[in-house]
Amino acid sequence: MSATASDADRHRSTIFDRRNVEFLLWEQPAFAAQAGDRETLSAMLDAAEDLVESHASADAVADAHEPTWDPETNIVSIPDETRAFLDAQREGGFTLLGADVEDGGLGLSLTASTAVNSIISCGFTSGLGGFYALTHCAANLIKAHGTTEQKDTYVRPLVEGKYGGTMALSEAQSGSSLSDLKAKARHVSGDEYRLSGSKMWTSGFDHDCFDNIIHLVLAKIEGDDTPQGNRGISLFIVPKVLPDGSPNDVALNGLNHKMGQRALPNSYWSMEDGCVGYLVGGAKHAGLMQMFTMMNDMRVAVGLHAACCGVRGFQESLAYAKERIQGSALGSKTQVPIIEHADVRRQLLAQKALSEGALHLCFFAASLVDDSKTNEEAATLLEVLIPVVKAWPSEWALEANKWAIQVLGGYGYTRDYPVERLYRDNRLNMIHEGTNGIQALDLLGRKAVMKDGAATRALATAMMTDVHMNAETLPDLAADLGEAVERYGTTTALLGKELSQNPARALANAHEYLNMVGHTVVAWLWLREAAAASKKLPSATGADVPFYEGKVATARYFFRHELAKTRAQAELLGSLETSALDVRPGHF
Amino acid sequence: MSATASDADRHRSTIFDRRNVEFLLWEQPAFAAQAGDRETLSAMLDAAEDLVESHASADAVADAHEPTWDPETNIVSIPDETRAFLDAQREGGFTLLGADVEDGGLGLSLTASTAVNSIISCGFTSGLGGFYALTHCAANLIKAHGTTEQKDTYVRPLVEGKYGGTMALSEAQSGSSLSDLKAKARHVSGDEYRLSGSKMWTSGFDHDCFDNIIHLVLAKIEGDDTPQGNRGISLFIVPKVLPDGSPNDVALNGLNHKMGQRALPNSYWSMEDGCVGYLVGGAKHAGLMQMFTMMNDMRVAVGLHAACCGVRGFQESLAYAKERIQGSALGSKTQVPIIEHADVRRQLLAQKALSEGALHLCFFAASLVDDSKTNEEAATLLEVLIPVVKAWPSEWALEANKWAIQVLGGYGYTRDYPVERLYRDNRLNMIHEGTNGIQALDLLGRKAVMKDGAATRALATAMMTDVHMNAETLPDLAADLGEAVERYGTTTALLGKELSQNPARALANAHEYLNMVGHTVVAWLWLREAAAASKKLPSATGADVPFYEGKVATARYFFRHELAKTRAQAELLGSLETSALDVRPGHF
Repeated sequence: MSATASDADRHRSTIFDRRNVEFLLWEQPAFAAQAGDRETLSAMLDAAEDLVESHASADAVADAHEPTWDPETNIVSIPDETRAFLDAQREGGFTLLGADVEDGGLGLSLTASTAVNSIISCGFTSGLGGFYALTHCAANLIKAHGTTEQKDTYVRPLVEGKYGGTMALSEAQSGSSLSDLKAKARHVSGDEYRLSGSKMWTSGFDHDCFDNIIHLVLAKIEGDDTPQGNRGISLFIVPKVLPDGSPNDVALNGLNHKMGQRALPNSYWSMEDGCVGYLVGGAKHAGLMQMFTMMNDMRVAVGLHAACCGVRGFQESLAYAKERIQGSALGSKTQVPIIEHADVRRQLLAQKALSEGALHLCFFAASLVDDSKTNEEAATLLEVLIPVVKAWPSEWALEANKWAIQVLGGYGYTRDYPVERLYRDNRLNMIHEGTNGIQALDLLGRKAVMKDGAATRALATAMMTDVHMNAETLPDLAADLGEAVERYGTTTALLGKELSQNPARALANAHEYLNMVGHTVVAWLWLREAAAASKKLPSATGADVPFYEGKVATARYFFRHELAKTRAQAELLGSLETSALDVRPGHF
Repeated sequence: MSATASDADRHRSTIFDRRNVEFLLWEQPAFAAQAGDRETLSAMLDAAEDLVESHASADAVADAHEPTWDPETNIVSIPDETRAFLDAQREGGFTLLGADVEDGGLGLSLTASTAVNSIISCGFTSGLGGFYALTHCAANLIKAHGTTEQKDTYVRPLVEGKYGGTMALSEAQSGSSLSDLKAKARHVSGDEYRLSGSKMWTSGFDHDCFDNIIHLVLAKIEGDDTPQGNRGISLFIVPKVLPDGSPNDVALNGLNHKMGQRALPNSYWSMEDGCVGYLVGGAKHAGLMQMFTMMNDMRVAVGLHAACCGVRGFQESLAYAKERIQGSALGSKTQVPIIEHADVRRQLLAQKALSEGALHLCFFAASLVDDSKTNEEAATLLEVLIPVVKAWPSEWALEANKWAIQVLGGYGYTRDYPVERLYRDNRLNMIHEGTNGIQALDLLGRKAVMKDGAATRALATAMMTDVHMNAETLPDLAADLGEAVERYGTTTALLGKELSQNPARALANAHEYLNMVGHTVVAWLWLREAAAASKKLPSATGADVPFYEGKVATARYFFRHELAKTRAQAELLGSLETSALDVRPGHF
């Protein structure tokens, strides 16, 4: 494989679009700085392609053979293909991407590791990527908040993929509302506690792919000084195997049977009285704060998974549409590939616009995570974009997956093709890591108005910079985006004012507000893509010509078919419509 | 059970909403005439409820245990629960609903049988209803077009459910484009032929639930006088067991593994050289015309299945939202059922608006099928509405199912609740019986402009009648619908003109046109519901008060959140935007 994708490489895969990743990384000014050395990153992208291609069947196998648990032997069975994929991921060094060099990691920026993971995510949507994503998150949490001893014990084996990690937040009665959790911790000595209670929705809780599995568990410390609600939650390290080699007192109670993302076992389990946990950093009642430092990364990861489900479906249905012969053009009797039918092209355009837009959004958020370490404006922008990055791709790349099935017709509805699985796998993303409803409340109720609306202004200013820059070269797109940004500003101001007077009324259509912001932001990113493509077109040759033309065409499609929706959204929001607030349970 | 649903009955089921069915039947002026005797129909609705409740587990079982085929024994295995359900359907007389009295049927109008089937469809979305739906269709086809001998041999056993029926249209290379089919028929004598070729996507092709299975097969007669394309297609009766008791020469080659609707085995199979078929009615090259007489019923049936998936998901998620305790109201610490959260109510409102609107649309189409037998205006209205009835519910009640999962959160993503299955079952409806893309071409390219636009005018006139009737009582809704009807008229006129000059350009956004028409028509039906409810409210008591209030509130929601979308749609269509037409395969 060449260090940069050559023309001939374009679309040789039906799984990912390397050319598009290269376009984002090196032809979008926003990302080059954080992407690092091009040759190094390209080599890793090549390796990611190899990983995808050499384990191409793992996803379908994992979907068809979901993990099973035998209560007699207490063994969770996982297909060999899953195990082989995890080994390959570890041996290929993919667990090391974002980890610090001092911990044995490669120290990649989130931008760069997002690029690599975007290739891998396209190849493995069924939850296979979740094993190490959670492990990476656990390592980062302990690294950021653990005591020296906790770091020394756990970070490196997690980074190296010898240990696995899980996040055990939810309980059966406490999913969206963490303050209702009931797990208890009783102090023993130092950072050591005994935990009891039950957890729900824990991904990767038990299996034999790792030497040890480190659960990060939220619980409330017993005692008078524990505050009520969210501020009384603490975070514990609960290893499957204790440091002395003995098993911890945790018990798997069963697996959840999911619609999709079936590679990753999802468990409910309990901590018995002898369950040992170590308070992260020895810091009481700091659990939610500690978790929240990971939230941005986790939400980018969910958005990325959603976007990649969309990209994969687009690539699969594109390949099908080019090969499948059926019907003829209007007024002709010659059979043609179905891509010649306008409605099939619309279905492909919709997928390209939504999923590549979503992917760009995730790259952008990742670059803001990187930039925010040194740049306050980036940090502010990131804050307001995070709920959008989690929610928008999970709703709109799912819509793209709907169209991927449609391109394939009856075949798309069968398990002989991956598109029906993508639709199932992607459906989880609207739910986990904070439902989209919660993201919308976070966006409108907190982020839009925080610091007197500073984040809203920062986002509007950033978008208007591109409006002005492209006013002459892409006047139609620039004008449309300018109007949309104006609507965004006035709508947010109006809702912000209402928030201080009647918050329930202001928030009644928060979901629509998030959609409006998402559509506006993604239109902005498409304007950036169209601008970059237009600039390159005059000197482009070979396959780059249709590539850049396609980018401009898709941007126009997005503006006319999608951005146009923001007018009705702004009108609805501006009218402070309250159907959802007014309707009573008895009315249903 | 009482003959009419009493107040206390409301929402005792999480599967269907009997009260809403009664509201449509007896409180919507459009339907009472075709619904027939209320007491008789109510007894059948009661029986349908009993069927649903007594076989409540059959759907989930059929989904978890899809049919399997053993090539060694050639046996297709079907769960006992499916067999028991089919027996109960037959013994309960449900196969007789729409069949003529002279054939042993009950002679119900399509309106009445749609009402009964709407209860059953809510209970069985996994394809269980497909066995007899196809059988009913086969009986009707033979009854309408068969020779006297064919009718005498096949109609009654099909009506009585002793025989099953299938529709064998598609082939692997010929799904949407029937003119490309390759199955051949060679004349023997009289109406007897020998058929050869392969068929794809045949539902219910083989299993042992019936004494015989009668396939209605499209094929082309060998010979010089067979016209090219669609006009050269003939329809044959191909029984599994021949009249002399010997097996016909048909061979199952395999089952398709579907994402949903798994109860009904979907097969690919072939006709060997000795395969006997009987030309329907002895009429050569009349196959498509004969099939098309069933098309309206079949498309109403698809729309109804989609609508019922939506209704079921709404009822399931409503029950969950009332019981599930989590989180607190803004500014409070008391835990509440999640239905108290505005965004959950929005998700329920969206489902109610979309799925009950879709159901009303199907009832309306069914009544037009009935009325069209004696009323030309109804026939014209039906023509233009049929593609909308097939396509709109399959896209928008699917959207409702998306929200049903969301209300249940993580639980909704598991197979412990039916909502994830509804989402999978419903996804087929955009594809079969003519993809939604084909429906859109039919609507805009044919129906909208046929008879110089007579159907468009008839629909607009019918809608405007309700606009005028409600101008004083529901002025906001009437005004909004009036504007939407105006947009519908001008947009259709503009596209109609373009059709004669540049058909490709006119049809480039046909999908959006269908959505616009569907949203406008469903808004109209919601206006009718709001009008009926408003009229009843002053004298209503008990549970009827919130029921009627809920109808008015949901109508308002639909107008503000959904009908509002038609402005952007009309603008897009009016601009003759051509992204989908202009984009070239290389641009992707």
